[in-house]
Amino acid sequence: MPLGGTRVVDLTRILAGPFCTMLLADMGADVVKVEAPGAGDPVRRQGAIKHGVSWYFAQFNRNKRSLTLDLRSDEGKRVLARMLAGADVLVENYRPGVLAEMGFGAERLKAINPELVVTSVNGFGATGPYADRPAFDFIAQAMSGFMSVNGKADDEPLRAAPPLSDLVAGLYAAYGTVCALLARGRLGAGGGQRVEASLNNGLISLMAYLSAETLATGQVPKRTGNDHPIVSPYGLFRAADGEIAVAASHDGIVRRFLAALGLEALLERPEFADNAARMRNRAAINALIDEKVGQDSVAGWIERLNAAGVPCGRVQDLNDVFADPQVLAQEMVLEIEHPGRGPVKVTGFPVKLERTPARVRHPAPELGQHSGEVLAEYGFAAAEIAALKAAGAV
Amino acid sequence: MPLGGTRVVDLTRILAGPFCTMLLADMGADVVKVEAPGAGDPVRRQGAIKHGVSWYFAQFNRNKRSLTLDLRSDEGKRVLARMLAGADVLVENYRPGVLAEMGFGAERLKAINPELVVTSVNGFGATGPYADRPAFDFIAQAMSGFMSVNGKADDEPLRAAPPLSDLVAGLYAAYGTVCALLARGRLGAGGGQRVEASLNNGLISLMAYLSAETLATGQVPKRTGNDHPIVSPYGLFRAADGEIAVAASHDGIVRRFLAALGLEALLERPEFADNAARMRNRAAINALIDEKVGQDSVAGWIERLNAAGVPCGRVQDLNDVFADPQVLAQEMVLEIEHPGRGPVKVTGFPVKLERTPARVRHPAPELGQHSGEVLAEYGFAAAEIAALKAAGAV
Repeated sequence: MPLGGTRVVDLTRILAGPFCTMLLADMGADVVKVEAPGAGDPVRRQGAIKHGVSWYFAQFNRNKRSLTLDLRSDEGKRVLARMLAGADVLVENYRPGVLAEMGFGAERLKAINPELVVTSVNGFGATGPYADRPAFDFIAQAMSGFMSVNGKADDEPLRAAPPLSDLVAGLYAAYGTVCALLARGRLGAGGGQRVEASLNNGLISLMAYLSAETLATGQVPKRTGNDHPIVSPYGLFRAADGEIAVAASHDGIVRRFLAALGLEALLERPEFADNAARMRNRAAINALIDEKVGQDSVAGWIERLNAAGVPCGRVQDLNDVFADPQVLAQEMVLEIEHPGRGPVKVTGFPVKLERTPARVRHPAPELGQHSGEVLAEYGFAAAEIAALKAAGAV
Repeated sequence: MPLGGTRVVDLTRILAGPFCTMLLADMGADVVKVEAPGAGDPVRRQGAIKHGVSWYFAQFNRNKRSLTLDLRSDEGKRVLARMLAGADVLVENYRPGVLAEMGFGAERLKAINPELVVTSVNGFGATGPYADRPAFDFIAQAMSGFMSVNGKADDEPLRAAPPLSDLVAGLYAAYGTVCALLARGRLGAGGGQRVEASLNNGLISLMAYLSAETLATGQVPKRTGNDHPIVSPYGLFRAADGEIAVAASHDGIVRRFLAALGLEALLERPEFADNAARMRNRAAINALIDEKVGQDSVAGWIERLNAAGVPCGRVQDLNDVFADPQVLAQEMVLEIEHPGRGPVKVTGFPVKLERTPARVRHPAPELGQHSGEVLAEYGFAAAEIAALKAAGAV
């Protein structure tokens, strides 16, 4: 596997950091999740729990091993230092400065292991006036500009329910980590370095042409709900049994779309003759389309519009998604056996490699399940391990 | 730089693919953007254009070079084949099957260069019943389940304005490409392989705990607008001159939040005494908070709440974002000089590497600006290049 043999010490919890280390683990890295004895990652106790397993935890911690370690104790810190000496990557999502307060500042880490890639995921980056602020997805959605462009024209700015900024930051952190591993080979001895991704910066980077327009013109985009700002007809239409999304992105598609609806004659009318006219009369053309779309089912329209070459799709809820034949064909739902706890379904691998594919090597770990074997692999003797356990440091 | 010396032949256009190759170029890869003679990437003509430069194009094509090549001509195809023989990576975002129709199917590519990493970005993946459907961000937002959880409780499913699925797919494709480059070193001779990311799979992977809950319970999440589904108070509040977002994610923060507002006494009242009670009376407590928040400015509240340790942020529009001192401190706005066309502002690098940082090496290219030098570097003689130009293939 691409990251086979890469040793990752993972101090992250909750979502952004664990998503980064999941992406690394899916590509074959040996990720050791370091958790507080007795408690562990709070996500172990969040969301739907079946047979003692949080399905939320299971999804984002597959392919990792768990080591319990009390990082508030001197003994725990000594263990961490020894592990870092033998690791390739450290991933953490503490607030900036916390790792240094724990005794693992940049200089110390370099002294322990000059080859180490140190990846941080945080809210706003480690420098600048807001560096110390606590990071929450909702706050990053507000501050990045995302909320200002999400929502309907006559409503307030709107957050998206999925924690987009957490996941995007985790994905950038994984990309940066792998780039740093490639760079390490070129930097020669002592080729480790710091890598950083943040919730706010990640979400800003996804504003695409909206950011380009604002930077060029100083104008901010208006919220337009499901309407395309400069194309009509385009958007959500209501079939008899649900909604369909249609992206009629240029005149050729508009003609095919209206023809498939039996409404091609609308294009002869001056108020719908070109895109500019249709933008002025968007409500009117949408109402005429909706009336027609309402006369048949979602499935009927999707088949007919696809046959006519009109980009369209069913508006699916998550149950629809996980029963969708395309989603299943793409193996985007995986079932992982958790020994003694039954099967758990998780979402699949979003990036596919033909010869070295991501795969499930093991389920999300029980708390501290691999403490003994991990410490042994990192060079601790059996007596040391026993003493650490007896002292409650592990 | 991490990808210095990595030769990328880039057949992509519009957004998802170009974002992937921008991420590779930002990390030092030599990306040659192959464009149709005379026309080039349609994004060159989209969005705000100043001094002849599309700022949208400039943002997503920085650090690349441009080669014009007529891929419909036999001569153009022969040039591409020769280039691929010397390249490390090919990136394409055609519909599945189109590259093979052009004469570059998997077998042929392997014959040309068994070391080649072939990265595809498409709508739904190259296999399965919807593989051939055209890919649009809006359709992926509908089909992935994203729209079903975006929006207010009493409204219809809502798309987000930024083309999230395009950018997320591009980011996964870049991650997969770099992983495949790492794998190539381990696979030995002939270590190339196919890499694929899709708009739909990428967005599905961002559903986070929402997907875990649905997979565990069969229940689909309700849309809740800016309200947190299980925490109150939490959300958007209206100051005298704008909105603030507050994430009071647990009881300790709720107490600090209400204390900062001078409303701590509310917690003594049975209808607001605990989270369950506050969820039942969310409208009432939100109204009381809004009344108080409306008495001061955004800046006043942000300062006071941050001092009190309450996660909060200003709801910023994109002009606010690009003037935000944190965003500027993080260098998330870059100014790139386009010779003869003046400076262009683009968003910065969302992942930071300490020793081998991403940087602007050159602006987005003029159409065909590097045709001659690229062909020379790929081994074409001056006479060949002249003949190709004369024939209109370049």
